Amino acid sequence: MNQKYPSVLLENAVNELSSLPGVGRKTALRLALYMLRRDAGYTEGFAAALVALRRDVKYCKVCHNICDEDICSICADPQRDRSTVCVVENIKEVMAIENTGQFRGVYHVLGGIISPMDGIGPGDLQIDSLVQRVADGEVGEVVLALSTTMEGDTTNFFIYRKLSPYDVKISVIARGVSIGDEIEYADEITLGRSIVNRTSFNDSIKI
Amino acid sequence: MNQKYPSVLLENAVNELSSLPGVGRKTALRLALYMLRRDAGYTEGFAAALVALRRDVKYCKVCHNICDEDICSICADPQRDRSTVCVVENIKEVMAIENTGQFRGVYHVLGGIISPMDGIGPGDLQIDSLVQRVADGEVGEVVLALSTTMEGDTTNFFIYRKLSPYDVKISVIARGVSIGDEIEYADEITLGRSIVNRTSFNDSIKI
Repeated sequence: MNQKYPSVLLENAVNELSSLPGVGRKTALRLALYMLRRDAGYTEGFAAALVALRRDVKYCKVCHNICDEDICSICADPQRDRSTVCVVENIKEVMAIENTGQFRGVYHVLGGIISPMDGIGPGDLQIDSLVQRVADGEVGEVVLALSTTMEGDTTNFFIYRKLSPYDVKISVIARGVSIGDEIEYADEITLGRSIVNRTSFNDSIKI
Repeated sequence: MNQKYPSVLLENAVNELSSLPGVGRKTALRLALYMLRRDAGYTEGFAAALVALRRDVKYCKVCHNICDEDICSICADPQRDRSTVCVVENIKEVMAIENTGQFRGVYHVLGGIISPMDGIGPGDLQIDSLVQRVADGEVGEVVLALSTTMEGDTTNFFIYRKLSPYDVKISVIARGVSIGDEIEYADEITLGRSIVNRTSFNDSIKI
């Protein structure tokens, strides 16, 4: 579409906003006009927060989570169980698992998942540093918490192979029927797995 | 939700991004993480474009359209018919009408629409300056192109009353069945109006 903008400044702003994932040119225009309606301090604060994030953000030297210091608050917390390491794709998953309040171990953020289609190989991920953590001997269990997709399974298997020389327990998060789901509507692969991997009723009511 | 963020910088960025209309906290987090994946220059350019827009944008002294100079490119264009003024709510409507390529007159941007529910009265809009343009005598026709809502009708009527002392033709954009619509599915108010305001077939095939 050769949409003409009445102002070059507006066009630049729309170009930048529409470069964000999921933001089209119509939405970008709406956002730019919204900024024009707010006072100037709003846009300045908005821009400063984004620049500060990009410039000053750090990654935890241990688990590669995003943080403001050299070591993230989870790795630095003496209450957390350092011997249990949960392997996740990205920081969104760290936040999601932290929200459950069910995990007291620490994390290892891979920064992605093996995906040949997207050109992401094992070398692009923080797998070597995970192996190093295990080799250092402090880790007793590695919990794989990647997406239950083909890419996730591939990455799980790659990590499993890399860690097999070490004396470490490797587990994977439970896959089964979601809480609140009706059995009738569960897909057959999920339902099949949930029957094969059934757990003791006693264990299941602990939470 | 008391979502905890691993970094204050990230939380600030998410707060700012989610202050945009239509952007929730999950989307804001996704956008912030996207910026972290791009190089630093990207975020700096993004922020600079928004700040520049808010700081340097100008409004046309004649029609109140957004522009980079004192007078917008439409008002400054000697090819445009200054005697026909199209009254619109906002610059988005200017762009939409310009895209049709069917209007060779000039515009008057009200900057909103009379909406007592949102606390917007006639004094908040560029109505006085419209009356002044008409009073100056250069305008032969005012085309009202506001939304076909109750607020639009109210504003149309208010402007109509304000302009009635002057010798100026006041018209309103045609309302009827959209091109490509099936009559069967047109709502009855639209269909009723389109019958009452039927036009000569000869006129209708001019475009």
